[in-house]
Amino acid sequence: MSSSYFRAVIEYDGSDFLGFQYQASGRTVQGEIEQALFRLTQQRLRVTGSGRTDAGVHAAGQVIAFHAEWKHALADLHRGLNALLPPDIAVLSLAPAPADFHPRFSAIERWYRYQVGMWPGHSPLRARYAWELGPDLDILAMNTAADHLVGLHDFATFGQPTQRNPLSRGSTFRIVTEARWQPRPPFLFFDIRANGFLRHMVRTIVGALAEVGRKRLNPDAFADKLERCDRSLAAPPAPPQGLILMAVSYPADEETGASSAPIPA
Amino acid sequence: MSSSYFRAVIEYDGSDFLGFQYQASGRTVQGEIEQALFRLTQQRLRVTGSGRTDAGVHAAGQVIAFHAEWKHALADLHRGLNALLPPDIAVLSLAPAPADFHPRFSAIERWYRYQVGMWPGHSPLRARYAWELGPDLDILAMNTAADHLVGLHDFATFGQPTQRNPLSRGSTFRIVTEARWQPRPPFLFFDIRANGFLRHMVRTIVGALAEVGRKRLNPDAFADKLERCDRSLAAPPAPPQGLILMAVSYPADEETGASSAPIPA
Repeated sequence: MSSSYFRAVIEYDGSDFLGFQYQASGRTVQGEIEQALFRLTQQRLRVTGSGRTDAGVHAAGQVIAFHAEWKHALADLHRGLNALLPPDIAVLSLAPAPADFHPRFSAIERWYRYQVGMWPGHSPLRARYAWELGPDLDILAMNTAADHLVGLHDFATFGQPTQRNPLSRGSTFRIVTEARWQPRPPFLFFDIRANGFLRHMVRTIVGALAEVGRKRLNPDAFADKLERCDRSLAAPPAPPQGLILMAVSYPADEETGASSAPIPA
Repeated sequence: MSSSYFRAVIEYDGSDFLGFQYQASGRTVQGEIEQALFRLTQQRLRVTGSGRTDAGVHAAGQVIAFHAEWKHALADLHRGLNALLPPDIAVLSLAPAPADFHPRFSAIERWYRYQVGMWPGHSPLRARYAWELGPDLDILAMNTAADHLVGLHDFATFGQPTQRNPLSRGSTFRIVTEARWQPRPPFLFFDIRANGFLRHMVRTIVGALAEVGRKRLNPDAFADKLERCDRSLAAPPAPPQGLILMAVSYPADEETGASSAPIPA
């Protein structure tokens, strides 16, 4: 095995992380992976991700890449990493990466799922991966509003461009290819796919769509907020524990990500 | 509200508890509920459960009872308890109990579910509520073996009688009314109902049935272990995080327990 550039699909339970990105103090996904790589290779390696996820946000198909000297089999690197990672992070797959691969800049589509809980009250066995909104939601209205998101739009109302992505150059325009609520009792899933997302965009959209579901905002008013491109019009973002980065797609391959849905299946 | 004896159905995530039963030091479900009751009523109350659950075992429908002086509305007691309980315990329902009600001795049937994970490797987003056994299980053989459990049997191979239940008096005989594996991809559920369970019985049965699923034990050999009533023949118990006490039934009413399945739905 002489390849020195790798890509991996990873899954993590974000509950006990300050987020994906390394921070000088505090537990992060990137920090834990770099530490496992150091223990395995004795090399100080830098891991790049397809994007940051906030504190408490989960991933079933985050994509990372890193350079490493590794003279053994690829399967040994995979197994070794999983043996050294904490139980809330797992490497699902690992492969050599082409030299021009970049997990963030090469990505053409990202898929996020937001899980709402429709049971009444609080459910300790389900609350770790859901926002508990209860049974009284107007799902039809939520989908009518979500339809307005699909296509090329300026999403300035719902997020800020914080990453210096040379492809977007601070633009708040993104192309949403899917935005749909689907009941999966007792859960309600919101699946949204786009070529990219602004910071806090999914959670801020879900926060506004929850207002639609509770009949405090009608779908036309939601569309109006989107059209006005005004950050001050947004509702508070939905809490992080309902959000899962499901998969990231790249041009050269099939969708790289979760082979199947996370909890619930 | 003058009733002073109450029954409640509670749900908990057992991950961070030493088990249901109060212990002098360490976090227990009973201890947390009694502490919440004390803060709410200023009375030192003793809570009784339908049975103990071990450290790490979850409940979607544990039943408890307690005596309390409460002059306000029942709904206020319910709301107050949930406000004071930690997020990993919730009171699902609360009702006045007849004077002769005993959560353990009055119960006629208990339903446990054991969740096996059939995905390959480790999944951080699913491992909290499952035993990760992977995809290569002979489910047909597991059900053939499980069929032997149904009916009146001496379950001495699979557990010990530790609770001084006056109705069973140290007997290891129990009546199992259901024992069935059902795929719920990527999970595999084992639902078992009985009039009562010995200590560690469900997890020890699941440990043996996992051996059947891995083709290390055939269903006839499983039946033979059961018939020989010899504790030394048992496989190690399955780990606690896959086990959920789903519901407890009483003669006077409908099944008291989870109104719907826990994760996954």
